[in-house]
Amino acid sequence: MKDHRLINGKEVQQRLLTGLRAEVDALAATCPVGRLVSISIGPSPEVAVYVRGQARGAVAAGIPFDEQVWPADISQEEAKRRIVALNDSRDVAGIILQRPVPAHIHVRSLQSAIHPLKDVEGMNPASIGNIVYNDVALAPCTAAAAVELLRSTGLELKGLEVVMIGHSEIVGKPVAFLLMAEGATVTVCHHMTRNLAMHSRRADAVVVAVGKAHLIGADMIKPGAAVIDIGINQVTDADGKTRITGDVDTEAVKEVAGWITPVPGGVGPVTVAILMRNALAAHRRQMAAGWLDH
Amino acid sequence: MKDHRLINGKEVQQRLLTGLRAEVDALAATCPVGRLVSISIGPSPEVAVYVRGQARGAVAAGIPFDEQVWPADISQEEAKRRIVALNDSRDVAGIILQRPVPAHIHVRSLQSAIHPLKDVEGMNPASIGNIVYNDVALAPCTAAAAVELLRSTGLELKGLEVVMIGHSEIVGKPVAFLLMAEGATVTVCHHMTRNLAMHSRRADAVVVAVGKAHLIGADMIKPGAAVIDIGINQVTDADGKTRITGDVDTEAVKEVAGWITPVPGGVGPVTVAILMRNALAAHRRQMAAGWLDH
Repeated sequence: MKDHRLINGKEVQQRLLTGLRAEVDALAATCPVGRLVSISIGPSPEVAVYVRGQARGAVAAGIPFDEQVWPADISQEEAKRRIVALNDSRDVAGIILQRPVPAHIHVRSLQSAIHPLKDVEGMNPASIGNIVYNDVALAPCTAAAAVELLRSTGLELKGLEVVMIGHSEIVGKPVAFLLMAEGATVTVCHHMTRNLAMHSRRADAVVVAVGKAHLIGADMIKPGAAVIDIGINQVTDADGKTRITGDVDTEAVKEVAGWITPVPGGVGPVTVAILMRNALAAHRRQMAAGWLDH
Repeated sequence: MKDHRLINGKEVQQRLLTGLRAEVDALAATCPVGRLVSISIGPSPEVAVYVRGQARGAVAAGIPFDEQVWPADISQEEAKRRIVALNDSRDVAGIILQRPVPAHIHVRSLQSAIHPLKDVEGMNPASIGNIVYNDVALAPCTAAAAVELLRSTGLELKGLEVVMIGHSEIVGKPVAFLLMAEGATVTVCHHMTRNLAMHSRRADAVVVAVGKAHLIGADMIKPGAAVIDIGINQVTDADGKTRITGDVDTEAVKEVAGWITPVPGGVGPVTVAILMRNALAAHRRQMAAGWLDH
């Protein structure tokens, strides 16, 4: 039997992609959406898994996906030069720099070479600053996916008491701003928080992005609350097999929570859909800025 | 008798300015700090009061202060052109655009014309984004002043439970990021928050920036907590006289709080000192970026 407390990330993904597809198709005759360029530096099986998911999402949204694998020994300068060339390419709608990158590459510096209008991952400081100013068009994908999943519960975000656990630059803080922009009252907790359970137990919704398997147990969640689990942890079971799990003890917490996202199958698929939404938004911003005029 | 619960903003200001003066003097022989340019558009008595305070702060810090009043009917284009010229002037360390401006001027657009390296008010989206990335060199002045006043209490910011009331782009949200960067657990409340007193009463420190006189009463503060009042409200007393008051009922709350900033005389003077600190920081960043090389 289907467990209605578990939010199906795949379904939310499909709904978003179907909507995007209609918008992308509507633009085809006048100003078609350009390529979404994925850059992997060096071969990596773990990166390849993500890229495959993104490629499938792009197909579903109708956005051309250009998967590039650059040499593992490429220099920072050459990588930057190539990114600048992509910035200047009229037929490139957006650029994703896949991580991890080899140790000799300075990833933050490389990301900031991506023009804000093509920054579909929302990683540029200017993009982050725009979120603070409530201009949320190009928000970091994982953070926007968490908000989309919370919205899918039907809960009114305005006035919602949300506790964000984790204060990273690319997830925790952007989730906090995005939810503030929706009118939620947000508390950001982290490893220096004195009494995490005091906060999590009073929350209408808990969003977790820490990277510790089973950090959040059933005793830390208010009955009926929504729990969005952004964590991705690899754990080894007693029989030696490895599997992926989130930051939440899903089996235990779903007996208490009103809604909970599974890992895998929760935030991950929705993040791919948000990436496509950002690519379309980037395309529209380039149109508005006159970049695509003939 | 002196009331030790009231934090003296003027004393904090003087301490900061004295420290800055030593740094500014030390640079004089090798790479002197350039002008801090204040731009007022049209004459305005209320703006003039602020500018006078800034001019005094600049003298105390040893930073040249260039007070410019541009015509009230200047066009947006001409104002932008002048700002770009100041961006390109080697002897300009920083630029402040005083507010309010006449109705025909788009203030946000004009602010974003100020180069991030000269943005001493920390208003550029890129500056805000850098704060999120924990690069807090050029934070918005009022927000940084609130943090400095909280620090002056001697409270350990790491792990401190802070409730920020007000979620504006230039005060509330930057205060939240700055305090997160210090390790505090921050909750941002606002007009959509369902139970403000529940939050404020559990806080070790409450920072208020709403713009409503006497919003915060004694029953909303935990005994011994620190209260930083950023509000500036003009109220008219029964006898018809007007006076300036903050968002906190200072007389009542100081019987409960461990520390409280008065209005006026709390956040205001410290904001001026932070503006000078930002001017020095901007100068150092321009040095580091090679802008001042011969």
